[in-house]
Amino acid sequence: MKQLYCYHNGHIIPTAEAKVHISDLGLVRSYAVFDFFRTYNGQPFRMLDYLARFRNSASSLRLPFEYSDDEVWHIVGQLLVKSELEEAGIKLILTGGESSDSMTIEKPNLFIQVMELDELSEEHYLNGVKLITSEFQREIPTVKSTHYLNAIKLQPVKESGGAYDVLYHFNNMVLEVPRNNFFLIVGDALVTPKDDVLLGITRKVVLELARDHFNVEERAVELEELRDADEAFVTGTTKRIVPVVHIDDYQIGSGRVGEGTKKLIKLFDEYVIQVNQ
Amino acid sequence: MKQLYCYHNGHIIPTAEAKVHISDLGLVRSYAVFDFFRTYNGQPFRMLDYLARFRNSASSLRLPFEYSDDEVWHIVGQLLVKSELEEAGIKLILTGGESSDSMTIEKPNLFIQVMELDELSEEHYLNGVKLITSEFQREIPTVKSTHYLNAIKLQPVKESGGAYDVLYHFNNMVLEVPRNNFFLIVGDALVTPKDDVLLGITRKVVLELARDHFNVEERAVELEELRDADEAFVTGTTKRIVPVVHIDDYQIGSGRVGEGTKKLIKLFDEYVIQVNQ
Repeated sequence: MKQLYCYHNGHIIPTAEAKVHISDLGLVRSYAVFDFFRTYNGQPFRMLDYLARFRNSASSLRLPFEYSDDEVWHIVGQLLVKSELEEAGIKLILTGGESSDSMTIEKPNLFIQVMELDELSEEHYLNGVKLITSEFQREIPTVKSTHYLNAIKLQPVKESGGAYDVLYHFNNMVLEVPRNNFFLIVGDALVTPKDDVLLGITRKVVLELARDHFNVEERAVELEELRDADEAFVTGTTKRIVPVVHIDDYQIGSGRVGEGTKKLIKLFDEYVIQVNQ
Repeated sequence: MKQLYCYHNGHIIPTAEAKVHISDLGLVRSYAVFDFFRTYNGQPFRMLDYLARFRNSASSLRLPFEYSDDEVWHIVGQLLVKSELEEAGIKLILTGGESSDSMTIEKPNLFIQVMELDELSEEHYLNGVKLITSEFQREIPTVKSTHYLNAIKLQPVKESGGAYDVLYHFNNMVLEVPRNNFFLIVGDALVTPKDDVLLGITRKVVLELARDHFNVEERAVELEELRDADEAFVTGTTKRIVPVVHIDDYQIGSGRVGEGTKKLIKLFDEYVIQVNQ
């Protein structure tokens, strides 16, 4: 296996040695933020958008992050070379750090980690996937915190239902998939929840690309709207646009990947080639 | 400083070396449970109650914990001797462990840690403390997970308000303090929330001791009831019974530590001496 490297508070270390003490607030108090972006063609994709979101997450939790965009770019470059990765995922993790009273932020820990991408098989894009709805709303949903307890707790529900993932809803409103945003296509409208969700960068790019081809509606989406949709998909950094053809026990539209979704996948793939060539 | 020791998956190691990898689900997904008990007179206090709760937390999150009460008792004994601690706090932490896909539980990590007790100064017991109310309900409240993000986020609110801690309420119902249970005394009734809170072991002991002296009411407590209370206090493992004399901008009863609270503190202190002599 490849030796991967990681940045930790000023030093580059083997990723295998990247650890936090059990008194770190990130572990004992779940007090940590992170972000995750990827390369296309060896170049970080929309890194400045991800860093802006990471800065917002950090400052929301009073965690200092004093690295410029250039400094992060430089560190990521070093890690990619040293880890001999051409295409990679890049994760930033900022934890509350060790704390003498288990409550006070004293010495946060920053890690920047590069890793192999966990790509989805082609079949998912060709046939679409199934989601299972589940009532839940994340704490401080606009912050990319490490709070995924519920998502992991639901793993058996997902597996026994043969689902790709769960779709959260709350107070009758459709929200998000634990690590993805959710979209509907209804006629010529592209609809996606706006509030109480983590605003994904892939979501942002899809909305930019869609404006010339759809009536884009960022708004509250009611649970009842799911059944009337023609198409649906989820978006995420690694997996880009994944078509959804089943939700719970019913199918979306024809139950096959629709033309609108195919168009957006094509636009996205073209965009990625164009910006990162 | 004293060299402290910790148990990790079968081995006793210096606590300074007790670490988890940054891919541990306890860190990247906040997927971990813990519990905390203490000694009186060098003996673990009500350990079986704490272990029962820990087992329940672990199984709720599908985390295996296959240690008998005797085995834990034996490990704790070794750690206390090796760490040269006479009086100590004992923390069990069980994390989701390292995971190849960041979602699947594969190799959980168990730590048993002994530490010096962080006792409260006498002044708090003599004069009572202030709480600040805050609307919040913990995820899976009956499980002792590591989810304290909100509590740490609220530290500045607590500090600027000169408060000992925050008092959570939700849907107009009084719940708990992040690491303590909450009680009211109204006339000869001792009242404490019953649902959607972590059921503390100190809470349990207080209820046992109070039955001969109060009409004990474990029930839903409305926010409006706070102002009409004669006395209030919080209970926790390290700090036992801490009188509350102010909530937000109003005082509880006379604003001084009341006779009912003093009686329970005395009963608790006597009980501790009796069981652990």
